[in-house]
Amino acid sequence: MFVTTEYRVKFYDTDTFGVVHHSNYIRWFETGRVEFLRMLGIDLNEMMSDRILFPIIEVSAKFHAPARFDDELEIVTTAEALTKAKMKFNYVIRKRGEEKILAEGTSTNVFTSGGKICRLPDKYSTKLVKFTS
Amino acid sequence: MFVTTEYRVKFYDTDTFGVVHHSNYIRWFETGRVEFLRMLGIDLNEMMSDRILFPIIEVSAKFHAPARFDDELEIVTTAEALTKAKMKFNYVIRKRGEEKILAEGTSTNVFTSGGKICRLPDKYSTKLVKFTS
Amino acid sequence: MFVTTEYRVKFYDTDTFGVVHHSNYIRWFETGRVEFLRMLGIDLNEMMSDRILFPIIEVSAKFHAPARFDDELEIVTTAEALTKAKMKFNYVIRKRGEEKILAEGTSTNVFTSGGKICRLPDKYSTKLVKFTS
Amino acid sequence: MFVTTEYRVKFYDTDTFGVVHHSNYIRWFETGRVEFLRMLGIDLNEMMSDRILFPIIEVSAKFHAPARFDDELEIVTTAEALTKAKMKFNYVIRKRGEEKILAEGTSTNVFTSGGKICRLPDKYSTKLVKFTS
Repeated sequence: MFVTTEYRVKFYDTDTFGVVHHSNYIRWFETGRVEFLRMLGIDLNEMMSDRILFPIIEVSAKFHAPARFDDELEIVTTAEALTKAKMKFNYVIRKRGEEKILAEGTSTNVFTSGGKICRLPDKYSTKLVKFTS
Repeated sequence: MFVTTEYRVKFYDTDTFGVVHHSNYIRWFETGRVEFLRMLGIDLNEMMSDRILFPIIEVSAKFHAPARFDDELEIVTTAEALTKAKMKFNYVIRKRGEEKILAEGTSTNVFTSGGKICRLPDKYSTKLVKFTS
Repeated sequence: MFVTTEYRVKFYDTDTFGVVHHSNYIRWFETGRVEFLRMLGIDLNEMMSDRILFPIIEVSAKFHAPARFDDELEIVTTAEALTKAKMKFNYVIRKRGEEKILAEGTSTNVFTSGGKICRLPDKYSTKLVKFTS
Repeated sequence: MFVTTEYRVKFYDTDTFGVVHHSNYIRWFETGRVEFLRMLGIDLNEMMSDRILFPIIEVSAKFHAPARFDDELEIVTTAEALTKAKMKFNYVIRKRGEEKILAEGTSTNVFTSGGKICRLPDKYSTKLVKFTS
């Protein structure tokens, strides 16, 4: 299973080299996982209301080719591991309709309650755990 | 009275035109007022602990000339009106040691408690109100 | 005439107060005017290829109520003045389907060629000038 | 050899969780390597004038503990490999004067000329290559 999110590059995403600043791909990864979780029926505002947080503990990215102003990008998000203890996602970013990968990456989030690592309550984990690709 | 803060332009502040994206000057205005308040002895973390917030209700900026990567900027912050009801600041941004103004602007913050407009408690207002330039 | 753009608030748009940082509304104004120009048939990449730039010289915003993570926003962009010398736009931001205005603002861009103020070539101005609301 | 850069966390760096958004550490890594190169006598504006660019091809980060508004951070940058073909740096971020690591990471840049991978000219490489830690 995967979720595709779309994004059109803004001027404020670009830098003096005429290309997207690399830190923005990291931000678009986050958008990908938020939408992946939404598709599983997981509402992060509800999770926050339940005092369950999901800090990111690791991110990595490889940058193969630049995106530029007004490019229409597709961020494809897949789940590598979704458990009661963590969420690990993979991301691939391309221009819409093209094969060439511009950037790809991975991230891991854990779950916390009261500032401490916790296991995700069943209310959420039943939606989450069966969908690792 | 005024407070000068310094900032060296980063790649991520610039855009595809080779200059600083205008939204960043708005951010540097904020840094100017935070440092102005610090100089008055006002600790915004303490204010937040006291559940007094200070939302911005208005900002304006004029952009005269661009700043570029690695430029060393000076943001000069002055107070136009500091009262128990609001803080209005003015800002001027130049390259360090130069006369030419690159950008200038103004902002207004009010005070709130429990989500409602409030008057600033004496604890803070005694530090604040005598320093309008 | 107006153009409506939509935006769902991301975690990276919010700040420690739990609301959207005000500088981001300034960025979303830009998205509004880019889409307004696209609707007029003006391609900013083409304009840049023709060495016509369009620096922003002024922006202002008023903030009435906060937006939060995952809010679905509508940015309504209208043209106040579109001439061969400048583009002045107005913006209003609301939650989708709601009447209450969260933020509103204005911006002015001029046109430059070779770093100097210029009048917009007919190629573009014929598309631009008839659409002031 | 290492270079330490300092940064005080701004409101716009934080998010609705009350902590620094993870993408910002990636940006501060960049500041670290720019300052490291400056200390070696390498002026990136000069390199850009010489049409030598230095795109980032990889970044990774681990996040151990959050930073918050107004925290004074130290970013310690060390060189893992500085050659004519690439620059690989490591980063550790702590609060000033504390031992606990908040975030750490790595990045790799290559050199390009005319859009193609190149070897760094002697003019720059003589300053660069002897300083791998």
